[in-house]
Amino acid sequence: MNAPTITTGPIDGSHRIHLPGPDGVDVAARRVELTDGTHLDVYDTSGPYTDENPAVDVEAGLPRRREPWTGTRTQLERASDGETTPEMRYVAVREGLDPELVRTEVAAGRAVIPANHHHPESEPMIIGKAFAVKINANIGNSAVSSGLAEEVEKMVWATRWGADTVMDLSTGADIHATREGILRNSPVPIGTVPIYQALEKVNGDPASLTWELYRDTVIEQCEQGVDYMTVHAGVLLRYVPLAAQRVTGIVSRGGSIMAAWCLAHHRESFLHDHFSELCDILRRYDVTFSLGDGLRPGSIADANDEAQLSELRTLGELTHIARDKGVQVMIEGPGHVPMHKIAENVRLEEEWCGDAPFYTLGPLTTDIAPGYDHITSAIGAANIAQAGTAMLCYVTPKEHLGLPNRDDVKTGVITYKIAAHAADLAKGHPNAQARDDALSKARFEFRWHDQFRLALDPDTARSFHDETLPAEPAKTAHFCSMCGPKFCSMRISHDVRAYAEEHGLTSAEAIDAGMAEKSEEFASRANRVYLPVAGS
Amino acid sequence: MNAPTITTGPIDGSHRIHLPGPDGVDVAARRVELTDGTHLDVYDTSGPYTDENPAVDVEAGLPRRREPWTGTRTQLERASDGETTPEMRYVAVREGLDPELVRTEVAAGRAVIPANHHHPESEPMIIGKAFAVKINANIGNSAVSSGLAEEVEKMVWATRWGADTVMDLSTGADIHATREGILRNSPVPIGTVPIYQALEKVNGDPASLTWELYRDTVIEQCEQGVDYMTVHAGVLLRYVPLAAQRVTGIVSRGGSIMAAWCLAHHRESFLHDHFSELCDILRRYDVTFSLGDGLRPGSIADANDEAQLSELRTLGELTHIARDKGVQVMIEGPGHVPMHKIAENVRLEEEWCGDAPFYTLGPLTTDIAPGYDHITSAIGAANIAQAGTAMLCYVTPKEHLGLPNRDDVKTGVITYKIAAHAADLAKGHPNAQARDDALSKARFEFRWHDQFRLALDPDTARSFHDETLPAEPAKTAHFCSMCGPKFCSMRISHDVRAYAEEHGLTSAEAIDAGMAEKSEEFASRANRVYLPVAGS
Repeated sequence: MNAPTITTGPIDGSHRIHLPGPDGVDVAARRVELTDGTHLDVYDTSGPYTDENPAVDVEAGLPRRREPWTGTRTQLERASDGETTPEMRYVAVREGLDPELVRTEVAAGRAVIPANHHHPESEPMIIGKAFAVKINANIGNSAVSSGLAEEVEKMVWATRWGADTVMDLSTGADIHATREGILRNSPVPIGTVPIYQALEKVNGDPASLTWELYRDTVIEQCEQGVDYMTVHAGVLLRYVPLAAQRVTGIVSRGGSIMAAWCLAHHRESFLHDHFSELCDILRRYDVTFSLGDGLRPGSIADANDEAQLSELRTLGELTHIARDKGVQVMIEGPGHVPMHKIAENVRLEEEWCGDAPFYTLGPLTTDIAPGYDHITSAIGAANIAQAGTAMLCYVTPKEHLGLPNRDDVKTGVITYKIAAHAADLAKGHPNAQARDDALSKARFEFRWHDQFRLALDPDTARSFHDETLPAEPAKTAHFCSMCGPKFCSMRISHDVRAYAEEHGLTSAEAIDAGMAEKSEEFASRANRVYLPVAGS
Repeated sequence: MNAPTITTGPIDGSHRIHLPGPDGVDVAARRVELTDGTHLDVYDTSGPYTDENPAVDVEAGLPRRREPWTGTRTQLERASDGETTPEMRYVAVREGLDPELVRTEVAAGRAVIPANHHHPESEPMIIGKAFAVKINANIGNSAVSSGLAEEVEKMVWATRWGADTVMDLSTGADIHATREGILRNSPVPIGTVPIYQALEKVNGDPASLTWELYRDTVIEQCEQGVDYMTVHAGVLLRYVPLAAQRVTGIVSRGGSIMAAWCLAHHRESFLHDHFSELCDILRRYDVTFSLGDGLRPGSIADANDEAQLSELRTLGELTHIARDKGVQVMIEGPGHVPMHKIAENVRLEEEWCGDAPFYTLGPLTTDIAPGYDHITSAIGAANIAQAGTAMLCYVTPKEHLGLPNRDDVKTGVITYKIAAHAADLAKGHPNAQARDDALSKARFEFRWHDQFRLALDPDTARSFHDETLPAEPAKTAHFCSMCGPKFCSMRISHDVRAYAEEHGLTSAEAIDAGMAEKSEEFASRANRVYLPVAGS
């Protein structure tokens, strides 16, 4: 075992605080202390790793704080019975919303709280259109296994920057041990695609997969504490040829595995045939279904086609079966979709899948920018989230090209925090705009340190600023290197504001009445604005 | 004078071609040659610099190919008279659209062709919602002047990656000589903000500005060949206090200069008072107005407020005055706007400004990500372009923090090409999707070299791929490092397609009828798919 090399310590300019939570379990948030004496508390996904001096023991894992809460029933069942669970009260504190809203959204199936009874280390969170838009980061070792600490670090790194959930897509050797390490150390829900491990067990031959082998793999992962599982049960035999005529065929790994199985056996997918039995297993642990879109479009040309929409209709049928069994469900979505076809995806998903939370990969809004697909997809992600998608799976700059490194993961997470937050603003989430306002106020008042601290990525903001104006006095200077002191529009704005306030020119009437007499005084002030203040 | 260090030579995997154009003046495009024997021609903004062995002479400038065409009237006047000018026929070839569409859009004021008679080196292009969405890159030296070749190189670098126009926002010394160098060497229209140079002439004191000094500066720039000019003539005295109550006041440099002048003199802006005279000057050269939004919002909180919309209404009045004078007009727009307020900006601009082309800066859809504002704004840019905006002014990662370097300029340009292209797809531009389809087809067929060549940035796509699979055989491998050979969904898709075609399973009926009997044959194929092919 390698020595752990886990990133710890507070994010620059802020520290973790603990709000009173249900049953004595506090709810973490991140407090950004500002130089004007105020502060702003923001949602935090990073777990104890960003505490001041965290005691990290990868072997021991995180404290099992949620253990007293876990039982034998699902959040959906308890919500439907009118019970507001500790998890619901916890997420209400996190979101700053009413616990009864949480309960009714879960009861209606419009939101899920992915929280396996066997993952008591996790901090409850909610995925649903009535709440802040969430993001997922994919991690996973490749065929050549990396060390356990390295995999745990990937999870810690992604959640440090804001990943709300992490999917472990590991393949290859040590898949069980890797997942165990991630789960025991993860403050966020962990998702998996069990078919990947099942395929490893049959040496990569999809035709050799069986229901029994898959079922046992699912049980193994449920026992470990996986919180949600992608299941491609909507890839039906009759849909496979629909995908054959596409520009990019089948681009989902799980989808292609199931398509291969269906064709090889000429039988309906065992996932579909045994779906009810699968529901019984997931319900026992309160594992949430993430019904996978195995036929999602892999190109602009294939978006919203018959293959994709046929599968979505089937996912809708499966949603209702799962809910009747008491299992929480979310629905995975595309992929590659041009902007004018994005809203239609959400509309159909909501209509056919009973308003189950939508969880999309991007979508990419064009195919022509490999190397920049975090951006092509952030455009789509912001739009689809505005239309009602509850969680966004990130895309890194390496998409279509290679495996993301540490910097790529951070870039992907920050990019998706942007998309999610832009959608929160557009949807009018009650707490969203406070951070924008605080940052813009700091910017306008030339509080550079506060501007950095309030940024999604304080380190990058600071280093970009310091590239051209590194000296500490520049952090309080009333200008930046973009325009220099002589052309700083914000500086004159301050004088305009001061002038207006001094003279009571704060309404249209006052302006008409007052402006005529008051101009002389401003002249000297206006002149002063443009004197250089370098170093001040 | 420094020795020129201009970036030249073809973009990787493509070369310039020359299509027959009006009056013997050919129209350049870029041809991407593909390994399957086909090719794709794409719009090209780079000028002769991407020719195989270009003869670059910064002192001499580019050939003055458009000189025989220039006259004394404007494109708007000639279009209104029913004339299809050579410039209109040129842009029709470039866009692949009907010359009569070009003429009618220009005549209606819904599109502009910024082409100063004194800038005959430029390749005509059109800005209007009926055409491909365009992007602008800002360049400019700072107070400490860089060499002429360095400024020319910034322009060449930005247009190499796709900038359709370049704005020279230089301040400081040598502003005239710098602009001269850029104009004589630029294949794209050049825009400026004349108030910047005027302010230099009065040593940075806005109260000392006069109409006469400004007018002479405009004439100086018209004579040099500037193609469009930002004029903040909509900042009226009575609007200034409206901006005083904002979270971020006035964030436009030109807007703050004019606000300072208005307050200092307690008079209406000389730009507004002398607007008619300004029109007469611009008309003589066919310089296009870019009516500036001096009161654009600088934060989410200030979006679509009374200050912004009041100015926009005034810009509408000025638009009609300019058009009556025969001057082409576009309208500048925000800034910072949350997604749900974006479409409203376009709707009001079109209604109040007689459908003049809209030219926006982003807009940024959140304030909380300094260091990533190319992304926060690409989301807004794609959306506002989908809604009808004709040109997008790029934002680089250094926005709000510092001066962009060479890498930042490229990142900004590529990011905005993505936003513009995503909007072209969403608007159904007839030629847009061909490139997506070609790239996706190459991706699906594992033609890695073609995928790189068709990318907006072939160099980055290739280098990202090579980070994990550098060897040449990997360029033809039927997998990539993301999933490895065992999990490649695209590989099985090929077998699914082959199977469907062999068995005539290309319709729903055929699927129902045919699938039942044909499964045995697929079993062996499906197995084969998952054999490792490393190095093949």
